[in-house]
This record gives sequence, structure tokens and C-alpha cells, in this order.
Amino acid sequence: MSFESMWAALEPVGRDSRTGGYRRFAWTAEDHTLREWFAGECALRGLGLTEDRMGNQWAWWGDPDRASEGRRGVVAGSHLDSVPDGGAFDGPLGVVSALAAIDLLQAKARAEGWQPSRPIGVVNFVDEEGARFGVACAGSRVITGALDGDRARGLSDADGTTMAEAMARAGQDPRALGRDDETLARIGCFVELHVEQGRALADPDHPAHGHPVAVGTGIWPHGRWRLDFPGEANHAGTTRLEHRHDAMLGYAHAVLTARAAAEQHGCLATIGKVGVQPGGVNAIASAVTGWLDARGADESAVRAAVAQVAAEAERAGATLAEESWTPPTAFDAGLAERLRRVLATIPTSATPHPQPAGTPLLGTGAGHDAGILANAGVPTAMLFVRNPTGVSHSPDEWAEADDCRAGVTALAAVLEDLAGESA
Amino acid sequence: MSFESMWAALEPVGRDSRTGGYRRFAWTAEDHTLREWFAGECALRGLGLTEDRMGNQWAWWGDPDRASEGRRGVVAGSHLDSVPDGGAFDGPLGVVSALAAIDLLQAKARAEGWQPSRPIGVVNFVDEEGARFGVACAGSRVITGALDGDRARGLSDADGTTMAEAMARAGQDPRALGRDDETLARIGCFVELHVEQGRALADPDHPAHGHPVAVGTGIWPHGRWRLDFPGEANHAGTTRLEHRHDAMLGYAHAVLTARAAAEQHGCLATIGKVGVQPGGVNAIASAVTGWLDARGADESAVRAAVAQVAAEAERAGATLAEESWTPPTAFDAGLAERLRRVLATIPTSATPHPQPAGTPLLGTGAGHDAGILANAGVPTAMLFVRNPTGVSHSPDEWAEADDCRAGVTALAAVLEDLAGESA
Repeated sequence: MSFESMWAALEPVGRDSRTGGYRRFAWTAEDHTLREWFAGECALRGLGLTEDRMGNQWAWWGDPDRASEGRRGVVAGSHLDSVPDGGAFDGPLGVVSALAAIDLLQAKARAEGWQPSRPIGVVNFVDEEGARFGVACAGSRVITGALDGDRARGLSDADGTTMAEAMARAGQDPRALGRDDETLARIGCFVELHVEQGRALADPDHPAHGHPVAVGTGIWPHGRWRLDFPGEANHAGTTRLEHRHDAMLGYAHAVLTARAAAEQHGCLATIGKVGVQPGGVNAIASAVTGWLDARGADESAVRAAVAQVAAEAERAGATLAEESWTPPTAFDAGLAERLRRVLATIPTSATPHPQPAGTPLLGTGAGHDAGILANAGVPTAMLFVRNPTGVSHSPDEWAEADDCRAGVTALAAVLEDLAGESA
Repeated sequence: MSFESMWAALEPVGRDSRTGGYRRFAWTAEDHTLREWFAGECALRGLGLTEDRMGNQWAWWGDPDRASEGRRGVVAGSHLDSVPDGGAFDGPLGVVSALAAIDLLQAKARAEGWQPSRPIGVVNFVDEEGARFGVACAGSRVITGALDGDRARGLSDADGTTMAEAMARAGQDPRALGRDDETLARIGCFVELHVEQGRALADPDHPAHGHPVAVGTGIWPHGRWRLDFPGEANHAGTTRLEHRHDAMLGYAHAVLTARAAAEQHGCLATIGKVGVQPGGVNAIASAVTGWLDARGADESAVRAAVAQVAAEAERAGATLAEESWTPPTAFDAGLAERLRRVLATIPTSATPHPQPAGTPLLGTGAGHDAGILANAGVPTAMLFVRNPTGVSHSPDEWAEADDCRAGVTALAAVLEDLAGESA
């Protein structure tokens, strides 16, 4: 199956015909279709498929359990789930590119007799976006122990279905959830290819401009806060202004403060989700909950911006609760430099969009399974494929076909290099 | 059944045990229970129950169809449905008080041989709040022709169920929906008793302070506008501020502008309902819809405030669509004066909270079936019962038991007077 035919097979799965966006959530029928598709592609390539205690799918070329210390597997891959109304690339590009890179290496094996000295793996992580149960990277968090099995089982979706129930209905055994040392022992290093989120590679004003592929350096510190604004329910058509306690007003101030604070401190702060009680057109809001997402390269700047929003919210009587906080994550610097060296050796004839010398290094504000593995001590790297608009988490998310081919070529070269070492 | 026992029977129906608020929506199981309860109360009193083409319930003491011109019925009543998480009084107080007033008049008939010269009716209007299908006063609008039968049948709820389907499932014939001249011909005048929304009667600084009951003069002009703010979906963790088109920012400005404009122009303007796409914590809003409710005693002030919000919204690229506009509604001034005269005759011994001389006249910003009937040419009046906090459309909505008794006494006196005339 070529890259194009794999892409075409995935295209309709979980796609909303109205918006063109994807709704691929963990342990749903759509997820089941994607997992079956992944298993089928692995079988076509003669890869041995296993599932870990969380249900993450691992496909191996070579036996990862026979690998002695120092010959652990070289793993590529990403995830197939999506945010609500998400794009086609975030996740699937990494999985499809890994399978296409396997194709290039298997062709090389047939033509030149090349054989990997270390097992090569392709992974499909479950529930990376956390769209259904609210915790991002649940698949990698559980197997590394960053998310406790009991807590994971008890997470519930909007309909009150727990992850344990959802897994059981999908034919998966939720009792096994937990840190999976057997799986972790197989991973020598992990390289996640991902569509760029942001447009540094496509922005003429950015120093990284002009490259189809960048190497990731790490993930910005990021967090999520819940802001609860109190009010008093009352009739919007009869309650005098001076008798009102309208929760929506404090919320509106917080939205504007978040933007101003981000500008002031040079980071990102966004309120993109809101809930209102009672939510009637003629009802003064008795409670408004907003969720603040804040990130940035500089941890102290992020903290300062959040403090500014908190102070504004507190003036309206609101409480602010930290739902998550992830410190900066650095990928393996030596591995990143090795990837840059490998990318410099790719012949310009190998891809329609050759990688110029000096592959750029980019950090990112988005969380990834690669970050979870890095925090668990796995040598980890990322490759970012150019995104012409920078749009992600949207039906408009996009990458040019030639840039995707450049990504596959780069990933294949990296896997060949990493798997070719005998030590 | 006394006022208290009727109240106790209604208390649990559709009550959310968590919030204490009511969820009584048209053509639901809760609505069915309320309609059955109403039919039972009417049967206990020997009233003849009919339903009009919309399913509004009319209970008659005396035969309204034998009434020749000039002896049309005197009707009291209100509605039993609620807003989401609404209070116990808005609607039910008018229905229960009308039934309790019938009890007083029937006792007088038994004790003194008094008989009404005109038929007396009690009405339970369906779907006054419009909580399910979005159109307030749907019951009275349909039978007066203000809402077309076809349009009413096609209105749909949040689950996509049309009013026609909902009525059919509730055993009601939706094909009959339309103006009902036979029913209108029976109504000589309509008096709707309602809990005050606002606290003029309880506010020491208001000239109406100190009275348990006021007489309504009319309904303020009011309208509802939909504001659609455009944006561009993108990842909140990766999109630079200068590349964003965040629909939430324009919305927040509009919320604050609505409040400022209302203060400036001396009217009410509220945004209490909002919808966000895609609505993810890490997603920049691609679309935000807010609903603006604006009202006031002065039509030009309301129009000026709305224009100010529209101008602010348009700066953010938003469009503003008028979903409804209701011009000022005046109740029958002669009837209001007659009610004031009747209330002045009630002996202070008749009620624990006697009505002082000079019953106040109050306008209201809330829509009512009484307003729809007034616009259809029915001589209409309202009685407002004191609300100690002014809160309505909320579980905290309240009226003191003694004030409710004063309301029943006043309504009975009014019905006796109106039904006692022979002409």
C-alpha cells in the first residue's frame, strides 16, 4: 500500500460530512475501524503486532524481545485519534509515514540485502488527544506510569461512560491498565513524525523558513486552568442592572485579560471552551466556567500571564483551579543532532522538496506522546513536516503531498541510520 | 384542594433534585403530568374542560358557548411549564391562584347563593416559556394567529424533534394547529396573575413598595438578537497571537458593550446564552454565537443600546440577526383602573397582608400570554404578586405565603366583579 492509498483508506473514517472535520475518539466504532486498518497494514508488511497493557498497538520488524540490552528497538509512529472536528494530519501523518518508511526500508532490504541490526517498531498510541476522557496522551501516560491505572479506568466521558466501560465494550481488558515495563524495555528510542502546528517552516519571516522538515527540540511548558465565575440566576428582562450578579461579565473580562497578558508576557493564553448556567436567552448567567490554556517557551512568562488572568478573575469573585501543568520537556539533544546529520546526507534527488542544509530545530507548544516517553527516560526525537497555513486541530489542517514525501524520506533515513548501528 | 395542597402536589413535578430548579418543557412526560393534574383539579370543581386547536386547556364554570355577545367569559390562568432550571412560581402561581379563586367564589355561591352572570374560565397555556422549541408564548401565539400553524409544527427542539412530532407523541393532534376563532370568541377578558419579576413591590426605594399586589399596565418592548462571531479554528498551544482569528475575543467585547450600553441608555441588555465551535480547551474558537436580549420601557433606548452592541460586533466581523422583536404592549387601561377600584374594596380583614390604598401600576419587561392576547384585541389585565428578592427564572424564585393569599383574594374579588356584571 503506497502512502497515497493508505491516506485514501483513512480519509472517510470518522469524517463529518458537514464540516469535513474528524471525530475519531478513543474506543469508539471509528477508533475500532482505525485499529483494524492499522493491524491490516502491519500484516501486509509482515510485521508482528502486539498490544500493551493500555491497548497501544506495536508492530515489529524483528523480534523486540530477543533484543539484548543495547539492541532495543527503534520505534516510529504516532496516533490515529483526533480532537473534535480535527484535521486529517495530526496523528495519522506520523503513523502512515512510519509505515511508508518501512516500505522504503523493506524495498532496500529486497534490492540490496540491507537488514536492520535492531528491531524496528511502528506504534499507534491510543487516545492521544484526550478528546473523550479529558486526559491527553492517555495511552503513553498509562504505560509509563504517569497516569495511574485506577485513575484512568475511572475517567468518564460526556455521557458518563468510564474509560473502563468504554474499553470493555470495545473488547479490551481494562483490568490490565498500568505501567508496562515489558513494553518500555523494548523501546531503544522513539521518533515521532508530526505535521507542524504553527507555520515557522512556511513563514518567510521565520529563520526556519524554506525547509520541508524540522527536528523537534522539546515541548513548551503548558497548563490548563478552570475558572468558575459565580453569579445569580435571574430574569434578563426584569432585573434592574444594579440588582444583577451576572457571571458572564467576569468571564468576558477574563477572556480579554488572557489575550492581553499573553501579548504582554510573550506567551500564549487562550479561552476556547465555556459553559454557562442556566444558559437561557432571557436568563442572567448564574455560573460561567471557562477553561484557560496557557503555554510558552519561557515558564516564568506563562506563570506571569496566568497570574494576571487569575487576579482579574478573582476581582469577579471567581476561583481558578489548575487542572494540569506540564513542565518543559526536552527531547534528547544528541539524538536531535544525529537526525540533523542524517537529514544532511539525503541526496537531493531522493525527494521533490529537498531538505536544504542546516535542518532547523523547533520547539512546540503542543503535547505529544513523544513528550511523555521523553519524561519517562526514553531517548526521543520528533520530525515536523511543513504546514503551509500553520492551522491544526481544524478541518483546514494541511500539508503538501511533496512535503509529506520529504517527511517519509527523512524518517526512512533516520530509521535506517538508527537501526543500522550494531551496538 | 386548598392552595397549599395544590402547591404541594405540583412541588415534585419536573424538579431537579440537584439544583432544586424545574425542567417542565412542552409535550414532555412532566408536561403530561401537569396537564393531568390540571384536568383533575378542574373535575374536582365541576368545571367543564376543553382543549383548543393548540392543546391549551380551558376549564369553564358556566357554558361559554351559550354566552351571547357581551356575556363572553371572564378568564384567569397562566401556564405550568418552566424555563430550564426555573422557579416554582412563574406560571403555576397564576394557575393555582385562579383555581383557588374559583374555590372562594364557589364557597360564596354555596353560602350566599351568588352566581356569576358570565362564564368564568381558567386556562393553562401550553409552552409559554418556549424552552423547548425556542418560541415564547407558543400556545397563545398559535390560537391568536400570531404564530402560523405550519411554522409552529416545524419548530424543532435541541434533539431535532419537531413540535408536530412532540405533540403526536404526547397524543395530541398537531394537524389542528392554527388560529382558533371559536376559542377566542369565548374570551371576554383575561386576567393573568403572576409573581412579580423584579422587586418594585419589595424595594423600599421604589414608589410601589409596601403592596402585596400590583396591577400591570403593559409589557416593555423587547427583542432577541443572534450574534455570530467568525474565527479560524486552530491549535491554542501552537498558533502565534498575530496569526490568530479568535472568535471569543469579539464575543467578550460584545458582552461588555451590552452591559455598558444598557447603563448608558437606561434599559436592559443581556447576553446569557453562548455557543462555541469547536469548544475544545486547546482550540481557538472558530465560531462563537451569542444571544442578546434587550428590553426597556423606552423603545428608542432599547434600539440605541442594540445598535451600540451591533456596531461593536461588526468591528469583530460579526453579523447580528433580529430573531424577534415585540413592540410595546399596553393592557386595557380601563380594565386596569377597574381592577384598582376592586382591590380598594377588599376588607383589610380578608387577608393577612392587606392591600394599602392606591394599588400601584407596574409595567414589566417579561413577555406573557396576556401580552399576546392583548395584541389580539382581548381586553387584558395582569396582577403581580410581590417577590421579596425580585429573582425569577431561578430555583430561588419566591413569594411569601401571605402574599400569595393576598393574590388569591385579589383575583377572586376581580373575577367576582367582572363576572357579576350582567351586560
